Amino acid sequence: MLMKYRLFTPGPTTVPEETLIQLARPVHHHRTAEFRKVFGELQELLKYVFKTKENVYVITGSGTAAFESAYTSVLSPGAKVLNVTNGKFAERWASYGKTFGMDVKEIKLPYGQHTTAEQVENELNAGGIAAVTRVHSETRTATAGELQAIAKVTAKHNVLLIVDGITSIGAMPFDMDAWGVDVAITGSQKSLMLPPGLGYVALSKKAQEATKSATTKNFYFDLKKYEKSISDSDTPFTPANTLIEAQLVSLKMIKAETIEGVWKRTKASADAFRAGVQALGFELFSASPADSVTAVKHKPGVDAKAFSNNLKNKHNVHVAGGQGTMEGQIFRVNHMGYSDVYDALVVVAAIEHTLKALGQPVEFGKGVGAAQAALSGAF
Amino acid sequence: MLMKYRLFTPGPTTVPEETLIQLARPVHHHRTAEFRKVFGELQELLKYVFKTKENVYVITGSGTAAFESAYTSVLSPGAKVLNVTNGKFAERWASYGKTFGMDVKEIKLPYGQHTTAEQVENELNAGGIAAVTRVHSETRTATAGELQAIAKVTAKHNVLLIVDGITSIGAMPFDMDAWGVDVAITGSQKSLMLPPGLGYVALSKKAQEATKSATTKNFYFDLKKYEKSISDSDTPFTPANTLIEAQLVSLKMIKAETIEGVWKRTKASADAFRAGVQALGFELFSASPADSVTAVKHKPGVDAKAFSNNLKNKHNVHVAGGQGTMEGQIFRVNHMGYSDVYDALVVVAAIEHTLKALGQPVEFGKGVGAAQAALSGAF
Repeated sequence: MLMKYRLFTPGPTTVPEETLIQLARPVHHHRTAEFRKVFGELQELLKYVFKTKENVYVITGSGTAAFESAYTSVLSPGAKVLNVTNGKFAERWASYGKTFGMDVKEIKLPYGQHTTAEQVENELNAGGIAAVTRVHSETRTATAGELQAIAKVTAKHNVLLIVDGITSIGAMPFDMDAWGVDVAITGSQKSLMLPPGLGYVALSKKAQEATKSATTKNFYFDLKKYEKSISDSDTPFTPANTLIEAQLVSLKMIKAETIEGVWKRTKASADAFRAGVQALGFELFSASPADSVTAVKHKPGVDAKAFSNNLKNKHNVHVAGGQGTMEGQIFRVNHMGYSDVYDALVVVAAIEHTLKALGQPVEFGKGVGAAQAALSGAF
Repeated sequence: MLMKYRLFTPGPTTVPEETLIQLARPVHHHRTAEFRKVFGELQELLKYVFKTKENVYVITGSGTAAFESAYTSVLSPGAKVLNVTNGKFAERWASYGKTFGMDVKEIKLPYGQHTTAEQVENELNAGGIAAVTRVHSETRTATAGELQAIAKVTAKHNVLLIVDGITSIGAMPFDMDAWGVDVAITGSQKSLMLPPGLGYVALSKKAQEATKSATTKNFYFDLKKYEKSISDSDTPFTPANTLIEAQLVSLKMIKAETIEGVWKRTKASADAFRAGVQALGFELFSASPADSVTAVKHKPGVDAKAFSNNLKNKHNVHVAGGQGTMEGQIFRVNHMGYSDVYDALVVVAAIEHTLKALGQPVEFGKGVGAAQAALSGAF
């Protein structure tokens, strides 16, 4: 029986058909007037998504590459950096400090928890901190926390706020300039409806100033080089130009829906999915769930592998498991990007059948009914 | 009048239709058994192209990113590095040493010249050199030089040989293990028939040993991380997985033709093109022309912009100009990758008409006749 392929991993996410078609178009050279026009349009749309007036640098690489370019371009060895550590990616960003010689202090939280502006301010009051690094939405635990209030605190203390927005920008409310975020980072393969391969970084005026005096050694990741070439609608190194051309197609779709509309849709999908699984007796993993991705605790007695294999093999529904210490404990479902509210409904439907197949008690329709009720105001 | 789009820039180069179609296929997650199988097959084919038994690391980034990963992973600050500087990319690699604190000594040559093994040995005799960095084929000047003899010298002196093979590997004879190259680097968008976005690096056993003691600070570019994950057919950071899936399609085409067949075809195209333009009274720029790309000096009195605009606007033939100090002096034509001998013939044909259009004397058929004669033994 035909079952359509449905990808729900929190990156790579589904890419729209129109964007895929663009990816199959013949390859052109990137140092041409035509490509500069594309790059210029891309800039305007990235600014729209980041909600910033500043340039958005395009790094060919993963989200980690984009983070490294920002980290090494604005910070110097020895700088005191406060890292909010509440998940796998936050741990990676802390290890950047260890690699490049920053003095990293961590607010360590259990997975699934988030920090408050008050906790951050307590640390800043001690003085000497140059920057705060913060994952807005932690993909591995599906946890998002307060950002605007933290930005107020960092601004007050004149400390750089570096935000990993890889699974928040383009999915959840994010207003770089108005909130006072200094460094905003995202990747192409999450909310922005493109395959992996591009990372994006925007710097506030304060962060741009910081690049001029930062002494961490970098070359490919030196954002001063990107700033210099961007005035000519160019990149310092050969960019993944076919991905850039395709990114423009996806960003135009976001612009047409409006970024606020995208945030609203993503939240509606997350709300419907959460209502559905909770009605089926599941618990959410996170104390502060993100709208971009949901992490659900497995039921006692259900084998995690059997669960995701049933979804995959019988329903062609592809979810992500837990990673590292959370392997076998949770499954994760994406709501970002090219994903609508009925996609969320279908995962709940497939979960009902999977529970039944695994010998779990299930009242058919209870999950999808709750999801439907949650969607009643969405249209 | 329909004129087919023909791309002759030396990267990005034309991508085969079958590979473009793969790029339009739906996106999958990369941490799956299916993707690991693709990655495993990719490894075997990359080893075939590099002619090595060692792993070939896959870096999401440009060729410069791949070079940086190799440079910072095998060398430490303070290391004495001998750089053969004969073009723009060689200059970039020299500046890496300045950025990361290596002690770079340069053999400086005029653009278009190449170094001999003897010159390299003279420098190594003075002692203390840890590595030689060498661009096998300099794209900006279309110049390729002796590599095997230099590898013999570096092996004899127990010095690492780091080779930028970005426009040589997959286009010109290159035999990493047999020649004793320690670090071999290339990118996806040249000979390997893919859009830009992936870089590839292979390390000899000696270079792998060097990564264990090298102290240059890196993270995304730390090849030890890539070595660790490759045993599980994985990458340490989210890879550009759709490009990887498409790379497999292009590499299978190379395997079917055989790598020796690809080298022979590339040389046949270059020979035909060179014979054609020389018969039309052009001079080659390089004293030691590469087979992957040809640089041709403009005729006196011909405006470089008018020349390439006529090719582009009247014939849909896209060549590259000179860059930096060579702007306006040369034009460059690619022979790498998805390009056959009749593509070379067609550029010569378009050049004949362009000369005529620009008021230059031309005997129609003289260029294409010479190209045809050069091709007589090719089939």
